[in-house]
Amino acid sequence: MSPTPGRITAVDTYDIRFPTSRELDGSDAMNPDPDYSAAYVVLRTDAEDGLEGHGFTFTIGRGNDVQVAAIDALRHHVVGRSVDELCGDPGTLNRDLIGDSQLRWLGPEKGVMHMAVGAVVNAVWDLAAKRARTPLWKLLAHADPEWLVSQVDFRYIADALTPEQALELLRAGRTGADAREATLRVRGFPGYTTSPGWLGYSDEKLTRLAREAVADGFTQIKLKVGADLDDDIRRCRTARAAIGPDIRMAIDANQRWDLDEAVRWTRALAEFDPYWVEEPTSPDDVLAHAAIRKAVAPVKVATGEHVQNRIVFKQLLQAGAIDVLQLDAARVGGVNENLAILLLAARFGVPVCPHAGGVGLCELVQHLSMFDFVALSGTTENRVIEYVDHLHEHFVDPVVIRDGHYTAPTAPGFSATMRPESLAEFSYPGGAFWAADLAQEAASADRTAGAPSTAPTAPTAPATNSATTATTAKKKAAQKGAAA
Amino acid sequence: MSPTPGRITAVDTYDIRFPTSRELDGSDAMNPDPDYSAAYVVLRTDAEDGLEGHGFTFTIGRGNDVQVAAIDALRHHVVGRSVDELCGDPGTLNRDLIGDSQLRWLGPEKGVMHMAVGAVVNAVWDLAAKRARTPLWKLLAHADPEWLVSQVDFRYIADALTPEQALELLRAGRTGADAREATLRVRGFPGYTTSPGWLGYSDEKLTRLAREAVADGFTQIKLKVGADLDDDIRRCRTARAAIGPDIRMAIDANQRWDLDEAVRWTRALAEFDPYWVEEPTSPDDVLAHAAIRKAVAPVKVATGEHVQNRIVFKQLLQAGAIDVLQLDAARVGGVNENLAILLLAARFGVPVCPHAGGVGLCELVQHLSMFDFVALSGTTENRVIEYVDHLHEHFVDPVVIRDGHYTAPTAPGFSATMRPESLAEFSYPGGAFWAADLAQEAASADRTAGAPSTAPTAPTAPATNSATTATTAKKKAAQKGAAA
Repeated sequence: MSPTPGRITAVDTYDIRFPTSRELDGSDAMNPDPDYSAAYVVLRTDAEDGLEGHGFTFTIGRGNDVQVAAIDALRHHVVGRSVDELCGDPGTLNRDLIGDSQLRWLGPEKGVMHMAVGAVVNAVWDLAAKRARTPLWKLLAHADPEWLVSQVDFRYIADALTPEQALELLRAGRTGADAREATLRVRGFPGYTTSPGWLGYSDEKLTRLAREAVADGFTQIKLKVGADLDDDIRRCRTARAAIGPDIRMAIDANQRWDLDEAVRWTRALAEFDPYWVEEPTSPDDVLAHAAIRKAVAPVKVATGEHVQNRIVFKQLLQAGAIDVLQLDAARVGGVNENLAILLLAARFGVPVCPHAGGVGLCELVQHLSMFDFVALSGTTENRVIEYVDHLHEHFVDPVVIRDGHYTAPTAPGFSATMRPESLAEFSYPGGAFWAADLAQEAASADRTAGAPSTAPTAPTAPATNSATTATTAKKKAAQKGAAA
Repeated sequence: MSPTPGRITAVDTYDIRFPTSRELDGSDAMNPDPDYSAAYVVLRTDAEDGLEGHGFTFTIGRGNDVQVAAIDALRHHVVGRSVDELCGDPGTLNRDLIGDSQLRWLGPEKGVMHMAVGAVVNAVWDLAAKRARTPLWKLLAHADPEWLVSQVDFRYIADALTPEQALELLRAGRTGADAREATLRVRGFPGYTTSPGWLGYSDEKLTRLAREAVADGFTQIKLKVGADLDDDIRRCRTARAAIGPDIRMAIDANQRWDLDEAVRWTRALAEFDPYWVEEPTSPDDVLAHAAIRKAVAPVKVATGEHVQNRIVFKQLLQAGAIDVLQLDAARVGGVNENLAILLLAARFGVPVCPHAGGVGLCELVQHLSMFDFVALSGTTENRVIEYVDHLHEHFVDPVVIRDGHYTAPTAPGFSATMRPESLAEFSYPGGAFWAADLAQEAASADRTAGAPSTAPTAPTAPATNSATTATTAKKKAAQKGAAA
């Protein structure tokens, strides 16, 4: 079969894991030992420009293989598509993926399957922006409002936001957009940092990192709370002493509490003037968030990193349950659904402060906030992007923070591309790092068992899953037969 | 390594798919071509009784492999556990699976990963009931109320139901339980049938099956609606004419509508006296269900087959959004979470009418409703279990319907065990049915391409995934290395 020009030829997936649990970085009340990971996807084409679309789902270790399997299950929707059509209208693919009548049973629009949709859709937007030779934020900010509206799936949200209302918001967003884009290029977009506040850190480390954050120009920090109230009181006091009264301090319970506990605990920390309390309870619980918000005011309520889709965000806004909407670039169905979420937030007048950190989330969300500032909400007031100083070195176009601000990306794309060396080293379980690590573990187990030491071969190229033909099932059958 | 007596030795998984899409059985407005499937799991032990625990997630085809991968990801929590401890307290495993600090990122408690938890937890309950030589409904109905309360995870629902309130409900449920159990044995539990109402059926078939349903003793039928209003008006008129005014007729939109459309469409069908409208919109939309319920009364609102967990059910009840709660045995985290859901429903006085059909869902849910009748709600008034006449022949202890009623199961266990011949024939892609089917497809593709015809080998034993040692990652590394 000879290749057709300008088509998607492959959807390659990678199981990438970083051994972050060994450092206690990223530890919070619910996630004591995350191994920050990415179920990573590359769209390859036979177009002459040789460009690729990169995307991923962020996970925290175990289950990254399940997430990769979910992306693999979407492959048949993508391979063979015209690159021009795909990049000119990602919304159609977005609807096809969400609407797959068999796969939607596994959600619908939530969890593993929905995050897989997001990874693929984001990879398409990365490719579209690379082909347009522009960073994604700028592609979105300069796009025709009618076209942007065509990219949004209004199903299940039209009772709160109609296409006409969305168009009106986007048209209004054009006023002054050039001036804001100029400001953005000079000043960047304000960030805040979670780096000082992980649960596993000593008070000394907390103090040092909090002071460094202020010195670095951040005007907000965040502390993880929720494991032990006495500890939290001490840590909040320590942090407040380190940063003084004028720097905002958010607290983040990572879903640790029930309704009553959330209210009690937040009130107990109120004397340290927390700016917002984040994820006070289950991200599924719209009504509990509304009750908590009433009870803990003036402390604001924030959530979103685990909010599964636009439908739950819509209800959080309708119920007056949140003061701050924390969208995540890799939790929902990709850029298209995040456009819906940004529009909903704009309609309700609620500021968006994206969740980031993990692997590559900072790289992605900056584009969404910058679009929001330039061409939708039109302001950075009370809007900050989370920043965590982890794992940026693995990206080809890592975020650049200057004076507590995210610098506007200039490289074409969605800043999603991971360095090939990183893919090779941290592919699980075959990459150099994990092969060596698992060999050591096996050798130690063998010594314990008294058997001779053996080490598995360590391939240096990243393991990829790829299938571009219709014979996958046949091949699998043969493999299963051979293995049985 | 010599086996330790009474431990879980293996968690074997199977990708089982039935080619139901070729018959238009099961077609509705959202799911036009389901291949009813099961991500199936068998817990094996080295106990002398030789008993196994069987469980599964129901899916509708594509993505069943993703669901199998999710169950595989839970294996390390189960292998090596004491069978006595596991069966004496499934709640501890339930909490361990839901609380896996890395896997919970993929939900939490929703979608693929949560359904995998449900499959494993249900398999434990199947094993526990088999060991107790009793059907599961009876094990639950005779269990100590304190112990049942210990099996419930109250996290995120304590604002609506405390352990004390749950205990009170279960204690009250003991009054008259013996008499109700005797009634159940004689009369069974009322069912209703969806068999006449699939979208793909002709009016003649609808009429014939609706009349048969009444003749068979059912007092309620259900029609799929939502694809085309004129068609729905005709089909509702046809069905109502066939069954007369006294038989209840439910309608089911399978999430097809937005809020306004749901209200308009339901009102347009109101003249045919629908008893409930099911899944009028997104299962995630608590507030929309509440608004729809207000607007379409006296038509009742029902949902649940896609409600992801107890937290969303809690809100549906708190918001007064549903008249009928349709729990599903294989959507949430297994029997333990369904105990929470049954208790929530009892607390709010809302009748539970389980979702069933698919593969094996009838077999499972009957146990939950029968427990509810005997030892919790204490009534079958306005309570019916869905019945669909599909695929029961694949089960060792299939449901038995008599005069429109589910007969109380007498065989030990959760009725989850599929026949070994069915596992062998419908394993995907290596089982006899699929191997032949895929060979035919490949041959036809080869003829089209002008290549000589080839057929893959067709293994007759079901393909299983199993790993009982700690060296899985090592083996995978070796395989990936070999395949690269």
